[in-house]
Amino acid sequence: MTAYGADATGPILIWFSASAEGAWRQVDTRAIRGPALAPAPRLDVQIGAEPAFSAVWRLKGVVSHLRYTTGAEAHKLGDRGAGLGRPEADRAVLIPIRKSPAWWALPQDERRNIYEEQSRHTSIGLEYLPQIARRLHHCRDLGEPFDFLTWFEFAAEHETAFDTLLARLRATEEWRYVDRETEIRLVRT
Amino acid sequence: MTAYGADATGPILIWFSASAEGAWRQVDTRAIRGPALAPAPRLDVQIGAEPAFSAVWRLKGVVSHLRYTTGAEAHKLGDRGAGLGRPEADRAVLIPIRKSPAWWALPQDERRNIYEEQSRHTSIGLEYLPQIARRLHHCRDLGEPFDFLTWFEFAAEHETAFDTLLARLRATEEWRYVDRETEIRLVRT
Repeated sequence: MTAYGADATGPILIWFSASAEGAWRQVDTRAIRGPALAPAPRLDVQIGAEPAFSAVWRLKGVVSHLRYTTGAEAHKLGDRGAGLGRPEADRAVLIPIRKSPAWWALPQDERRNIYEEQSRHTSIGLEYLPQIARRLHHCRDLGEPFDFLTWFEFAAEHETAFDTLLARLRATEEWRYVDRETEIRLVRT
Repeated sequence: MTAYGADATGPILIWFSASAEGAWRQVDTRAIRGPALAPAPRLDVQIGAEPAFSAVWRLKGVVSHLRYTTGAEAHKLGDRGAGLGRPEADRAVLIPIRKSPAWWALPQDERRNIYEEQSRHTSIGLEYLPQIARRLHHCRDLGEPFDFLTWFEFAAEHETAFDTLLARLRATEEWRYVDRETEIRLVRT
């Protein structure tokens, strides 16, 4: 009955598998908050069906519609946006995050207010485009241990800028609602 | 790795199975827009793992956080809300809906504007509380053939009010973005 990709605009399911396979070498795994994910030599990223090989851990998420972004913001993001897979962008970071029950109990307008008006989440990310490309995967409704998987891609020369972006986001009001976070640094091989 | 129900506030997965089993007798199935779902004698509703018995069709969705509702609206809904399973509410209607690619391409503020400011979706529903109880199940991110499954429960004496509620919603601007809709009327046995 499951029909991901039944139309071109529907959610796209992505699998992240930590194992000995995959195009990305894991160079560092840090548990920022909550329990860690086990380290593994590589990370494999696949679209569609669950990969057949066994993995140390496997996380899935869907690339889906925007949840907080306004039309004006979406326009700016589109203007400055950068795609994944640029040849020079051989560094990636996967950041699985879970937000607290208190966050999810908030109504939409209060979550939006914390997300952007107080924390400037979209505005901060915009400052680092097009150097730091990102793709957000939603997984809360999929019964996963995390709510979001964010994938960042950039060239080695922009790693310091990425560190600053991350530090700024983690200092926001929004991040007070993050109750589990892991950071996995990767290099494309 | 799937962990629905890992905490009390997380999304809850619900299965709707059309077969010879289940507490609800199917009295009518109408394809309002798009292809129909096959009729079956009964409908079974279960929480958690996929039911083991075979079904004519099976749809799943998660009861999850609010997507458009403001704090003020959530407060009103809470005040007037009615739970499922009331003894007198032996009529139910399951309405699976899919919205168009054009809807999902809209940013959050434009979807909210159509949903409530133009279509008064929450406000209309409020007028029928507590007589018409409802529970919304999200399934777009689950790769299902529908985006939402709405379950309504009411006493037989309120069926006319329910019909009016449905007619009012279907006449809204929001419904212009509905590209598949089926209506399944049920009686508890």
